[in-house]
Amino acid sequence: MGDYQVTNVQQDALGAVQLELGNPNALALRRPFDPLAHDLEPSFRLTRFADLKGRGCKVPQEVLNKLVEGLQQDYNNAAEHEHAHFMHMAIPRIGIGLDCSVTPLRHGGLCLVQTTDFFYPLVDDPYMMGKIACANVLSDLYAMGVTECDNMLMLLGVSTKMTEKERDVVIPLIMRGFKDSALEAGTTVTGGQTVVNPWCTIGGVASTVCQPNEYIVPDNAVVGDVLVLTKPLGTQVAVNAHQWLDQPERWNRIKLVVSEEDVRKAYHRAMDSMARLNRIASRLMHKYNAHGATDVTGFGLLGHAQTLASHQKNEVSFVIHNLPVIAKMAAVAKACGNMFQLLQGHSAETSGGLLICLPREQAAAYCKDIEKQEGYQAWIIGIVEKGNRTARIIDKPRVIEVPAKE
Amino acid sequence: MGDYQVTNVQQDALGAVQLELGNPNALALRRPFDPLAHDLEPSFRLTRFADLKGRGCKVPQEVLNKLVEGLQQDYNNAAEHEHAHFMHMAIPRIGIGLDCSVTPLRHGGLCLVQTTDFFYPLVDDPYMMGKIACANVLSDLYAMGVTECDNMLMLLGVSTKMTEKERDVVIPLIMRGFKDSALEAGTTVTGGQTVVNPWCTIGGVASTVCQPNEYIVPDNAVVGDVLVLTKPLGTQVAVNAHQWLDQPERWNRIKLVVSEEDVRKAYHRAMDSMARLNRIASRLMHKYNAHGATDVTGFGLLGHAQTLASHQKNEVSFVIHNLPVIAKMAAVAKACGNMFQLLQGHSAETSGGLLICLPREQAAAYCKDIEKQEGYQAWIIGIVEKGNRTARIIDKPRVIEVPAKE
Repeated sequence: MGDYQVTNVQQDALGAVQLELGNPNALALRRPFDPLAHDLEPSFRLTRFADLKGRGCKVPQEVLNKLVEGLQQDYNNAAEHEHAHFMHMAIPRIGIGLDCSVTPLRHGGLCLVQTTDFFYPLVDDPYMMGKIACANVLSDLYAMGVTECDNMLMLLGVSTKMTEKERDVVIPLIMRGFKDSALEAGTTVTGGQTVVNPWCTIGGVASTVCQPNEYIVPDNAVVGDVLVLTKPLGTQVAVNAHQWLDQPERWNRIKLVVSEEDVRKAYHRAMDSMARLNRIASRLMHKYNAHGATDVTGFGLLGHAQTLASHQKNEVSFVIHNLPVIAKMAAVAKACGNMFQLLQGHSAETSGGLLICLPREQAAAYCKDIEKQEGYQAWIIGIVEKGNRTARIIDKPRVIEVPAKE
Repeated sequence: MGDYQVTNVQQDALGAVQLELGNPNALALRRPFDPLAHDLEPSFRLTRFADLKGRGCKVPQEVLNKLVEGLQQDYNNAAEHEHAHFMHMAIPRIGIGLDCSVTPLRHGGLCLVQTTDFFYPLVDDPYMMGKIACANVLSDLYAMGVTECDNMLMLLGVSTKMTEKERDVVIPLIMRGFKDSALEAGTTVTGGQTVVNPWCTIGGVASTVCQPNEYIVPDNAVVGDVLVLTKPLGTQVAVNAHQWLDQPERWNRIKLVVSEEDVRKAYHRAMDSMARLNRIASRLMHKYNAHGATDVTGFGLLGHAQTLASHQKNEVSFVIHNLPVIAKMAAVAKACGNMFQLLQGHSAETSGGLLICLPREQAAAYCKDIEKQEGYQAWIIGIVEKGNRTARIIDKPRVIEVPAKE
């Protein structure tokens, strides 16, 4: 029997959660998470329940490629033989580096589009952590232009190191954040799985059944397109810098380039950004005829740009000139030497923005439209030129400092 | 961007894996996993990469109920308001203790049926571990009479404690086992997520889009039905006893009631049983007009029987008289005092059998048919009588010793 499905229990209100939430529709009014208000130790930090943070937990790309080789080979064989009917679909080859898996169904031209992701706490506010995890899972659908999610499942690992008290406070808040984000996305969480695990784990599955015209196969970039990015970089730098406020020896390494206040602002900007859905960004991809997109997560801007480039039908390459970064985080990254490789495009992001190939004449309108609808900027960060399906960042990219919202 | 989707890599063969697999269609011919053949230490044990085993990792039922209360309340509110159209479906209320989530789709009467599960290694053979994990995920679909799976995703946690060498041997074998089991089930693995984690983790997501007549809502038991179980109990006892062969102080507690040979046989019977798909059992539910079913996993036979009973439309209760148990494991469980609570119905199972409510006159034919098709016995273990939607095991249940297959 599955672990839990949403069942018909007679409520009841979770006092502490209610306290925390205030008006769930007015995020700005939310009080920040205060361990004391929940009878937890003031030193309680959700991020201490895992040794890796957010999408920094990914198995490195090259290791993963090696590990899945066996699978892929067989799959290719199967695709050539039993599943040759896939070739009649609009999908050139199923799953080639797509953000989602796309499975043709037995039922009248429909496809099942699915994605899954899970990771470790990277912010200390459990409710926000739940929202970020949900936004991050949905982001893979949005990257493919799929704006409707039919169903979500939640995957939770409760840390073996949590006290009962901590567990009873933190886990419902995470669940609530996840669910609120799903509601905001117009979908629901109908089930999932919860286990105990040394590290706290949070993630989910997002699924949609749709017609082929509802998604955008990300392989259609042409020379002359421009690259748009819809969220600033630097989330991993910001959450680390914030954690270092408690760690003098770490803090000393960066305090010459950044103030405490700067770090707190950057952290809130990062939380805000990671919790924001890429749904409108996705919807506008249809309006402005996007040629393909991906979302920027664990492999960093350049890693994902390279993957996207490698799957293009045309002989194109991506060149990135501009790096929008959460204010001051470029300086912090530089002060940390090679640790983040932010300006080299390798810093992991969590629930990052969409990186979109747009026709040159549409890109400015796309950026204007998203800002009008959401109040957040998007940036033209590069171009698509003739090439051999690679991506690079120019030698001295322009860093765009993106301030925290006031 | 999603972690990996199946991509078009130019092979190549995983030498060690090939060695291990022999003819993948002839399981009986498979050599058991030998760490030395892979250049691993002879003491290598996959089960050491987690402190909990298999479905023993579940968060206790009562804790979970408390944690998800908040979610459920909101869901009920939503169900009454926005989602009132659900009530027009054949589904009395979405997700009432179902093994899967069932989501009505925007497209012509179709539903998305989904389930997810993940857990920790409980056998030392990585290939078999992959097969068991896959069979276990699919089992939730089968419990609802859904025999076709449209798509699977794989969830993997690579232990931080594995050496590179161990990782490169073990993870491809797990993946291969998972994938082979999916192929056997007539489905494919098109994507997933891989992270590093202190404990090794393996699981997945199974999804199907189907018409309402393709699944069986498990709430229709009537007085006079009988309960059928399609796999023996005792998997958790068997895998523990097997691990104790290496631990003299543990082994001493049970060696009076069981021989080494018995334990090895029981372990192989358990592996075989856990890796077996419940698909034919599920198909026959339709043929013999089952009134509902669940699969027996982490909460033990009685836990799942109680959940199933609690969701019945009619005023019925389940009474269990017979306990089919892998040979000698009842004695081992007794010798361990209260550790397993096997005969009380609380011992966790992994990828256990289906517990099915069948019309009395059909049950014997069901059992005969499954044995004819698969060569495995099923057992009538109890009855449905008038009652208040509970389940119990009688005072001195009959233990049926189920021998290992030769």
